[in-house]
Amino acid sequence: MMQMSLEFIRIVLVETTHPGNIGASARAMKTMGFSRLHLVKPKLFPNAEATARAAGADDILANVQVHQSLSEAVNDCVLVIGTSARVRNISCPILSPDRVNTEILECVRSESQVAIVFGRESSGLSNEELDVCNKMTMIPTSDDFSSLNLASAVQLICYELFKFSKANNRDDQKLIDKSETITNEELNKFYEHLQQCLIEINYLDPEKPRKLMRRLKQLFNRSALDQNEYNILRGILSAVQEKVRQK
Amino acid sequence: MMQMSLEFIRIVLVETTHPGNIGASARAMKTMGFSRLHLVKPKLFPNAEATARAAGADDILANVQVHQSLSEAVNDCVLVIGTSARVRNISCPILSPDRVNTEILECVRSESQVAIVFGRESSGLSNEELDVCNKMTMIPTSDDFSSLNLASAVQLICYELFKFSKANNRDDQKLIDKSETITNEELNKFYEHLQQCLIEINYLDPEKPRKLMRRLKQLFNRSALDQNEYNILRGILSAVQEKVRQK
Repeated sequence: MMQMSLEFIRIVLVETTHPGNIGASARAMKTMGFSRLHLVKPKLFPNAEATARAAGADDILANVQVHQSLSEAVNDCVLVIGTSARVRNISCPILSPDRVNTEILECVRSESQVAIVFGRESSGLSNEELDVCNKMTMIPTSDDFSSLNLASAVQLICYELFKFSKANNRDDQKLIDKSETITNEELNKFYEHLQQCLIEINYLDPEKPRKLMRRLKQLFNRSALDQNEYNILRGILSAVQEKVRQK
Repeated sequence: MMQMSLEFIRIVLVETTHPGNIGASARAMKTMGFSRLHLVKPKLFPNAEATARAAGADDILANVQVHQSLSEAVNDCVLVIGTSARVRNISCPILSPDRVNTEILECVRSESQVAIVFGRESSGLSNEELDVCNKMTMIPTSDDFSSLNLASAVQLICYELFKFSKANNRDDQKLIDKSETITNEELNKFYEHLQQCLIEINYLDPEKPRKLMRRLKQLFNRSALDQNEYNILRGILSAVQEKVRQK
């Protein structure tokens, strides 16, 4: 039962430079019962070093899905959690490991897809990629040295989820209605719609966008829209456009 | 204050085969505020791959202490914790991570030395090495795949201790009297004394020792003798010997 529910959680590695880290991440995942690994533009994959470091988790490497962007990798996900070792230019909520685990397991119980996203070895996630995440979590480290290896970060996050999932593996918990939450694909459609609408009403100058869309995304990412709210917002945008175009 | 107390904890790697794992373990330690690394008969050290994988934790590698046996590496330690991914032929107590953390921090608060011991990549710790440990702890893993990378195991143990130490970092907790607990060196002296005594009384045949000493060690390791009990036992052994030799 617990093993099954972890099936809804994917690990996403963005532009990994060292293939050894991909293999080591696969091994780390498997020790904690995870199996679904997605890669966004890996530098070298498939690769012999990845296979060597996977050391028995070859099945995970064999089933890897490779994508051209983070958005593509998390398209069908309801919850997208970014990971960071440092507090940076992030304005979406930063959750403690416990809090983030609670949210992830709520999603998983309603059979919704969840992604946990790990950035580049050197520079983490870009601002654009951070905007794709609904929530962030941080692994606690020493103040003097926070340089976690990528596979170590995957190991720690998977370990916390594995422990949490075992501790909370009660079948009697109420299932959350799957239709309540929207997918990342829907959210992106909403953002495109919103942006188009803002341009049409001359609020957003596509030549000088500044940080407008970024801020709006941060707001709505944080809000975790449900289906009904989503329909209403899309309806409003359409109504605005219809009105504008009539003129 | 907390950083200081972690100074009393050493990580001991026994006969590590891959030098990369030594470097990666040093990095893992440093991210969680640990600094003291001891190696027992490493296959290759110092080594360029160890340095490369340490990635900023070179100071830990520079201060590594190399030993010829596990006993030597933990000689001045009051508490020696073995780690294992599997339940094997172990009869000393296996503690949960929380319980083991409590015992470690109690030792550290009384400024006693603690060792956490990690075995070979392929075969873990030998029976003889297991007997050196007072307690064991196990990292929870998937039933289907428990093959944690060595540096990942170090990462997880250090992470749990780091978190626990932060959560329990209260100065007002009563210090435990340092003299209460005995060192591993004293314990070994007791075992030698005991064995000698058993031979002298013809209970132990050195030609056919069977598992007698091993079982006795497991018993006393589990008991965590204090100084007073130790003195009494040594006194009893001496008295026995004196009596036997008089005949």
